[in-house]
Amino acid sequence: MIKIGILGVGTVGSSVAKILAENADIIEARAGKKIVAKSGVVKNINKDRGVDIKISNNPLDVIDDPEIDIVVELMGGVEEPYELVKKALANGKAVVTANKALLAYHRYELQQIAGDLPLFYEASVAGGIPIIGALRNGLSANHIESIVGILNGTCNYMLTKMIKEGVSYEDVLKEAQELGYAEADPTFDVGGFDAAHKLLILASIAYGIDAKPEDILIEGIENISQSDVEFAKEFGYEIKLLGIAKKGRDGVEIRVHPALVKSSNPISKVDGVMNAVSVVGDRVGQTMFYGPGAGGDATASAVIADIIEIARGNRGPMLGYKKGLESGLKLVNPNKIESKYYLKLKVIDKPGVLAAVTSTLSKFNISISSVLQKESKIEDRVRLLLTTHLCQESDIIEAINGLKELDCVGDNVSMLRIVE
Amino acid sequence: MIKIGILGVGTVGSSVAKILAENADIIEARAGKKIVAKSGVVKNINKDRGVDIKISNNPLDVIDDPEIDIVVELMGGVEEPYELVKKALANGKAVVTANKALLAYHRYELQQIAGDLPLFYEASVAGGIPIIGALRNGLSANHIESIVGILNGTCNYMLTKMIKEGVSYEDVLKEAQELGYAEADPTFDVGGFDAAHKLLILASIAYGIDAKPEDILIEGIENISQSDVEFAKEFGYEIKLLGIAKKGRDGVEIRVHPALVKSSNPISKVDGVMNAVSVVGDRVGQTMFYGPGAGGDATASAVIADIIEIARGNRGPMLGYKKGLESGLKLVNPNKIESKYYLKLKVIDKPGVLAAVTSTLSKFNISISSVLQKESKIEDRVRLLLTTHLCQESDIIEAINGLKELDCVGDNVSMLRIVE
Repeated sequence: MIKIGILGVGTVGSSVAKILAENADIIEARAGKKIVAKSGVVKNINKDRGVDIKISNNPLDVIDDPEIDIVVELMGGVEEPYELVKKALANGKAVVTANKALLAYHRYELQQIAGDLPLFYEASVAGGIPIIGALRNGLSANHIESIVGILNGTCNYMLTKMIKEGVSYEDVLKEAQELGYAEADPTFDVGGFDAAHKLLILASIAYGIDAKPEDILIEGIENISQSDVEFAKEFGYEIKLLGIAKKGRDGVEIRVHPALVKSSNPISKVDGVMNAVSVVGDRVGQTMFYGPGAGGDATASAVIADIIEIARGNRGPMLGYKKGLESGLKLVNPNKIESKYYLKLKVIDKPGVLAAVTSTLSKFNISISSVLQKESKIEDRVRLLLTTHLCQESDIIEAINGLKELDCVGDNVSMLRIVE
Repeated sequence: MIKIGILGVGTVGSSVAKILAENADIIEARAGKKIVAKSGVVKNINKDRGVDIKISNNPLDVIDDPEIDIVVELMGGVEEPYELVKKALANGKAVVTANKALLAYHRYELQQIAGDLPLFYEASVAGGIPIIGALRNGLSANHIESIVGILNGTCNYMLTKMIKEGVSYEDVLKEAQELGYAEADPTFDVGGFDAAHKLLILASIAYGIDAKPEDILIEGIENISQSDVEFAKEFGYEIKLLGIAKKGRDGVEIRVHPALVKSSNPISKVDGVMNAVSVVGDRVGQTMFYGPGAGGDATASAVIADIIEIARGNRGPMLGYKKGLESGLKLVNPNKIESKYYLKLKVIDKPGVLAAVTSTLSKFNISISSVLQKESKIEDRVRLLLTTHLCQESDIIEAINGLKELDCVGDNVSMLRIVE
């Protein structure tokens, strides 16, 4: 029999305890052993968790309990769970965590500390989708060419509503908060940080890149407006918050930002709170994994899958490799990222404006792919929309600064990246 | 170092040897050990395989070689590979196979014989998509509610061409044969047998059902006509050859047949030679796995993933469970399957015909959902298309026989199942 202790018995933690009890037969058949949730740790011991396990408010009641085989860490946060996970490993316990922030910052130290003890984390990325298993095991024969993922259900829900129903950013955020999809302070989701944590985990398994959130480009969806949505619709794009890790000539680009995605790309069809991850391997070609990215039961499904793997005696290095994966592969500086861009300008409607704009772009080596000038005026200005050919992030940023110096443009410039 | 011997060095076998050499660094990093293809066995020893391994025409040169750790079986067929795999296991070797026919017939005996030796088969279903890993490991906390898969790339390629480009069945089959997607005798693919073998493997992992191809409903795409394609287009359906394993009140339905799939269902968007498997679990909800279902490198990617798992020391029961999975769960008799149906009739154009048809259906408890009568005549007859509400397979078969007895109908009735 395997005994589990759960640090953090919230939505996911109570689902773990409940499913271990309710699906006990099938879990025992698959694991080859009985698996039982013995105890849990919470901050507020007076709140009823609706589960039949021993509850305490002292993490050591789980971590130092010699009967506990596997510690499940579902607390959230970074430094506190880091200390507790280290203690659990020091006590010889296996660990399962769904904590992407912990792994975004400490995955390499944890791999080192864990050594031969299993430290599994399927639930940390894309909830119920077994994407960690796919990358660690199923696609392990491949050099990974790219990972493109919809990794945050809250943002995807909001963008889907904005583009399909024309709801404004402010209204859809309020709605998402009322539905419990977004927190009171939504920054972690809408700012792209949650997606970035998950992407860094995937990028480690795929490329062995040891990067922190600070090292990569992270942009959220806060500035997506109705005019972006209208442009997207008119030109056959969807707008998605994407996590992208991609190998190029100069290394690996790792970035999170909203992007215009062609409607012919299958990932553009992933709507609402669903997540999806597309992985291209040099041998397998394109694969895609789709499913619910959040929710107590879906996330608990992934936590228990890890527990079953541990019960079966399966190991394998935490990040899927034992030494440098692809030697010399390094993170591309965010300024050196290459993309196609969509530029949105509001310009004063007078002769020579288009010439001024296009010659400024040309000065910064930006080659224009398409131009759309909208007839309708907004406060004496007209909307000018451009898309570019492939160019470098630093060039587009300089070009945008150049455009802002034009009297006919001023501060009225914004940009979105285009993903084919 | 792990040494591999390959039984059958054809398209997939030579890809395995080539990738093990070309991606050796990344494979060693992920496996924690060097993995080398040492030798292979072929029927025709004089044909150049383009790979740098020792080739013989005697399987025992691999199976009895004490240096070989893992035997990779890529021969095809059933009884010959069965005997060889048994011998390899008896010699204490791990086995990796891509042979779905072998597993469709002998997976339970092989699980028994393998015991604690790994016998892995990720490549046997849906080529490069790690769907076996997803079911065995990633979704192992779930009771599986349904599996719906596009499991045969040849059929999907043909149906996509028929529906998107209006090509006839005969022409698209010829084209598929010229492109190498279909064999000279295409029965195994177009008759649904290949998909059925794969589905039976998935159904074992999900439900523990020990069924053989003879026990389940298998229909191919040979009778799909242009009029079916036109109906599908007009009513917002795609036509897909689906493998379906689904738990209902009375047990598990396992069936392969062409189906009308609503265009809003994501699986309807899977076109060409691609495969996809949608799995619904009681806890995770809906997941979908998409990728290339065939091809030397994609299939070899899955074979090598298994080899890496074995090198890492990972085991787990072959079919993902150690004893009866869901006790009492049994295969539903093909006659008891429930579905919605689409009926296609050519009827003589005279008063009272619609009344005769509808009253016959009602006599057999078939409730009609929609009717479409086409104006244009074909040899004095008009096309009558009906869809039904949910009913039982045996009832619809009896009803079709009843319709055939009507003078105004005769033999001009055919049927397709509808999947929502």
